[in-house]
Amino acid sequence: MRKVGLIGCGHVGATVALDIVQGGFADELVLIDKDERVAQAEALDLLDALPLLPYHVKVYAGEYKDLADADIVLSTLGHIDLIKPGGDRFTELKANLPEIRAVAEALNAINFSGILIATTNPNDVIVNVYSKLLKLPKSRILGTGTYLDTARMKAQVGRALNIDSRSVEGYVLGEHGNSQFTAWSTVRIAGQAFAKIASEKQLDLDDLEEKARQGGFAVFNTKHYTNVAIAAATVALMNLVFSDAKNVAICSHYDENFDSYISTPALIGKEGVEGEIQLDLTAEEEAKLAASVAEIQQKIKLFS
Amino acid sequence: MRKVGLIGCGHVGATVALDIVQGGFADELVLIDKDERVAQAEALDLLDALPLLPYHVKVYAGEYKDLADADIVLSTLGHIDLIKPGGDRFTELKANLPEIRAVAEALNAINFSGILIATTNPNDVIVNVYSKLLKLPKSRILGTGTYLDTARMKAQVGRALNIDSRSVEGYVLGEHGNSQFTAWSTVRIAGQAFAKIASEKQLDLDDLEEKARQGGFAVFNTKHYTNVAIAAATVALMNLVFSDAKNVAICSHYDENFDSYISTPALIGKEGVEGEIQLDLTAEEEAKLAASVAEIQQKIKLFS
Amino acid sequence: MRKVGLIGCGHVGATVALDIVQGGFADELVLIDKDERVAQAEALDLLDALPLLPYHVKVYAGEYKDLADADIVLSTLGHIDLIKPGGDRFTELKANLPEIRAVAEALNAINFSGILIATTNPNDVIVNVYSKLLKLPKSRILGTGTYLDTARMKAQVGRALNIDSRSVEGYVLGEHGNSQFTAWSTVRIAGQAFAKIASEKQLDLDDLEEKARQGGFAVFNTKHYTNVAIAAATVALMNLVFSDAKNVAICSHYDENFDSYISTPALIGKEGVEGEIQLDLTAEEEAKLAASVAEIQQKIKLFS
Amino acid sequence: MRKVGLIGCGHVGATVALDIVQGGFADELVLIDKDERVAQAEALDLLDALPLLPYHVKVYAGEYKDLADADIVLSTLGHIDLIKPGGDRFTELKANLPEIRAVAEALNAINFSGILIATTNPNDVIVNVYSKLLKLPKSRILGTGTYLDTARMKAQVGRALNIDSRSVEGYVLGEHGNSQFTAWSTVRIAGQAFAKIASEKQLDLDDLEEKARQGGFAVFNTKHYTNVAIAAATVALMNLVFSDAKNVAICSHYDENFDSYISTPALIGKEGVEGEIQLDLTAEEEAKLAASVAEIQQKIKLFS
Repeated sequence: MRKVGLIGCGHVGATVALDIVQGGFADELVLIDKDERVAQAEALDLLDALPLLPYHVKVYAGEYKDLADADIVLSTLGHIDLIKPGGDRFTELKANLPEIRAVAEALNAINFSGILIATTNPNDVIVNVYSKLLKLPKSRILGTGTYLDTARMKAQVGRALNIDSRSVEGYVLGEHGNSQFTAWSTVRIAGQAFAKIASEKQLDLDDLEEKARQGGFAVFNTKHYTNVAIAAATVALMNLVFSDAKNVAICSHYDENFDSYISTPALIGKEGVEGEIQLDLTAEEEAKLAASVAEIQQKIKLFS
Repeated sequence: MRKVGLIGCGHVGATVALDIVQGGFADELVLIDKDERVAQAEALDLLDALPLLPYHVKVYAGEYKDLADADIVLSTLGHIDLIKPGGDRFTELKANLPEIRAVAEALNAINFSGILIATTNPNDVIVNVYSKLLKLPKSRILGTGTYLDTARMKAQVGRALNIDSRSVEGYVLGEHGNSQFTAWSTVRIAGQAFAKIASEKQLDLDDLEEKARQGGFAVFNTKHYTNVAIAAATVALMNLVFSDAKNVAICSHYDENFDSYISTPALIGKEGVEGEIQLDLTAEEEAKLAASVAEIQQKIKLFS
Repeated sequence: MRKVGLIGCGHVGATVALDIVQGGFADELVLIDKDERVAQAEALDLLDALPLLPYHVKVYAGEYKDLADADIVLSTLGHIDLIKPGGDRFTELKANLPEIRAVAEALNAINFSGILIATTNPNDVIVNVYSKLLKLPKSRILGTGTYLDTARMKAQVGRALNIDSRSVEGYVLGEHGNSQFTAWSTVRIAGQAFAKIASEKQLDLDDLEEKARQGGFAVFNTKHYTNVAIAAATVALMNLVFSDAKNVAICSHYDENFDSYISTPALIGKEGVEGEIQLDLTAEEEAKLAASVAEIQQKIKLFS
Repeated sequence: MRKVGLIGCGHVGATVALDIVQGGFADELVLIDKDERVAQAEALDLLDALPLLPYHVKVYAGEYKDLADADIVLSTLGHIDLIKPGGDRFTELKANLPEIRAVAEALNAINFSGILIATTNPNDVIVNVYSKLLKLPKSRILGTGTYLDTARMKAQVGRALNIDSRSVEGYVLGEHGNSQFTAWSTVRIAGQAFAKIASEKQLDLDDLEEKARQGGFAVFNTKHYTNVAIAAATVALMNLVFSDAKNVAICSHYDENFDSYISTPALIGKEGVEGEIQLDLTAEEEAKLAASVAEIQQKIKLFS
């Protein structure tokens, strides 16, 4: 059976829980929040929906001890309210760090041995901290990283060409943050280089890249949070782990090539990261990736 | 193809949109909000999720003219922020009424001839107003009504007995508001009267009923809104209409027996309400239902 | 994770496998057939579909040792080809019995400790044999029993009234065979006795009951097998177990009240049968149920 | 609402119907077979499953006049029984042609103006015949073509590398028949040429290609038909049309570049084929594709 623990029932956590319950993607879903009433309110809203849904999920507000046999724990906590338009993303880190430390301590105390998937930001720094604190192999700790940014890039390319974003291949690499970049050499439609198509159609790659990078903020500036796409990314990763898919997915994980947590494509299965996927990047892209790794490493030194 | 218009992208509307996109329950989903940026932000968040989801939905922030050929329009607007714990639910009505009038006018202007399903509160008053304003037969205007309260009652009974809430039959009848009541004579598990089971197990029916009635507030008091269960109810009703299910569902509709919009079980199919379902209520329940109708009618006179 | 073993890849087994893979209802699905090539052919057809489906399932033709850690084993073997219109249903038993014994022996050899769900016919006799042979508590052995016949009855009632069959409550009780009967006192629509509705509409209950009982043969006489509905019943039961639903479902199980395997409503959860559900039957129905139990017991004595 | 007609209720048609009903992918599904009892038996088996399934579908055995307002008609008829291992695939054509002509005549008589998707073999010849007979633009007639063979190739590549077949990109081009070929230059994993990976791992491309080409026969030789993967391909195409996905999918369609029905990637939306997708093929692949077109054209001349 599929048992999931979800830590942090804000907008992202609540939406992840909703996706799981609507899709029947877990058999048992334990909700935890530092404010127990919040977890209880979400559990209650979900329980009230269950009579109307096709699948049963045992969902409840629980405690860490309930996660001892969880297959997957989702770290969805955050302080999105601290981020102001144009503000300092690392304000969130300062608030998240002590909470992350408490989560890690609690998971260690119950000898949690499953897979941890984090959406908490700044994502690459956070998974690095988890990796230092948790008694888990590095391969069992994932961040949604640029899985979301890659989806946003595909959405932008799909809109620009009026095609299904599922028909767009390619990656946004690096930090889930400002040093990320779209590796245009990897972006293809039906195998054709998108750069070539874009050139023919006079589409501005820099503009598309910026829209993908700022996609979250376009949503954030109005809603004051983003939840739908990040929740979809979290649940998609979770399902790849549960089903042992050996799927090539991009997410923040410990990449030996860079000795850092960073988003590059990896093989995802029931053990978490089960392999690295090599890309044929241009020299410029290699440089950008290295720079993004350096940026993450610097932030890790500064903030954690 | 299934085309849906959604008017009002607050917490409920946004969650309905998410449910539809995650489940692939519409082919085209038009989002409208009085603040166009809000509709655009939701559309963008959904578009960013599409590359990660199994089904394609053409989702966009649109205008009323885009709804001319919509099969179903969902009125999900509201002012939940006006409701304070212990406050006046009709504060919301005052804010919602002018918006409802604008929606009706706009739908009439495009000769909308589909089905309207409203979650807007106070639900029974609102669908009555829609019915007066819209150029649609009464049978094509539905409110989620006590579909949600019935789900909440099933959730409470399920929890009390530790059984699947989908195994609980029965209805919460009347107003989606304080005069609603659980018709305990209709509540059965495997055909057995729950009242008898409750008596054997010394469960307090009044307490369960109150929990169902206040279920929304238990969620609301912490989250400051409810969205998951009400969205599930809305989408379930919508799917019954699309699939012409002839399903017996409880929702606010024009019930000829009472010459009023009120929640009693009805046969729901592609034409909206296609038939009334008779219940064998106790005399006490009949009286409560009549009182609830009277309450709604009085509010209609006072407020609309 | 959800691991399922499926034994017998004929029409029913193949359709169950298809339902599981299309719905993503298992993470690992092991196909076994006495003719290994048949299991391999089905696995290959399913693998060829996976690139087109939303969920990954690790599906393969395996051996019994692969089932040591299976959560659920489905016994879907049978010899439907032996049944001729008007022929002897117990011809199938003679062919199935030695195979059932081999399955039980093989499952014991790997110390299988999960839940067994059987569709193999004659269903009540078969689960009884499994129960004697397997080193499992009786509560962990289920047969689809009249879960299917109940669905067929609901389909017939739904058609007769032109309502959604999901809006029909009630049970077909007893043997999954000729001594089964529709307990009309349990059949309700929105809580109303169907017998009363039928009387008003001059519907013939005996005719409806016979159609439900013979429903399989109406399909069988043309297709020479039935698969869709029986597969749906199997997968529905399986999902109730996986999700620990505590759902009230009717299936063949050991009912202490009768000291026999027989289809009466039971509480189904992760431990299999977790409780009995009492029905308020009429004296005539009680007698029919007792007669059906006697029929099963007699067959068990004669044939197993 | 989504209305589908399905013509031909053999193994493929029945499995397509099952997939549609299980997934809730249509609101109304009309089953037609030259033997009306076969359509009725399938409809009955599906109806018996509906009480157990989450979505309602109005499914019934109908007549051509019921298809006048169908959005999509699926031609799933065939004579798979005529194909013997090592036998003549065109034996099936001779039996299918008169039936195809009758279908086209019947669809013209009701002025069918939706989209036709055919699985009937030999697929490219059949869609060409449909195109000549039906009063529909060429763009509204699709064959599953090598959508299936492409899935089989991805399954083989996935197995060879032990990765999710959904992570394999690329195409099998040309005839859904012996002259088809895997365009290895299009096959990529995470953007990397599979040919390079195969070379490193000493995988035999010809062997993989042959397995993909013969994939159907590996299933066929044991089951005497294939149904799961071809049904999945049919339903996937159907869903792309319903949801107006603008998805890049490979299927048999009229490709202006070759003035022939042939499988090359196309943009699929609610109007059927809405655009051609250019591939950068090698000269050798271009030659193979031209040869495959010639093969189809020759067969069209000979047989239709």
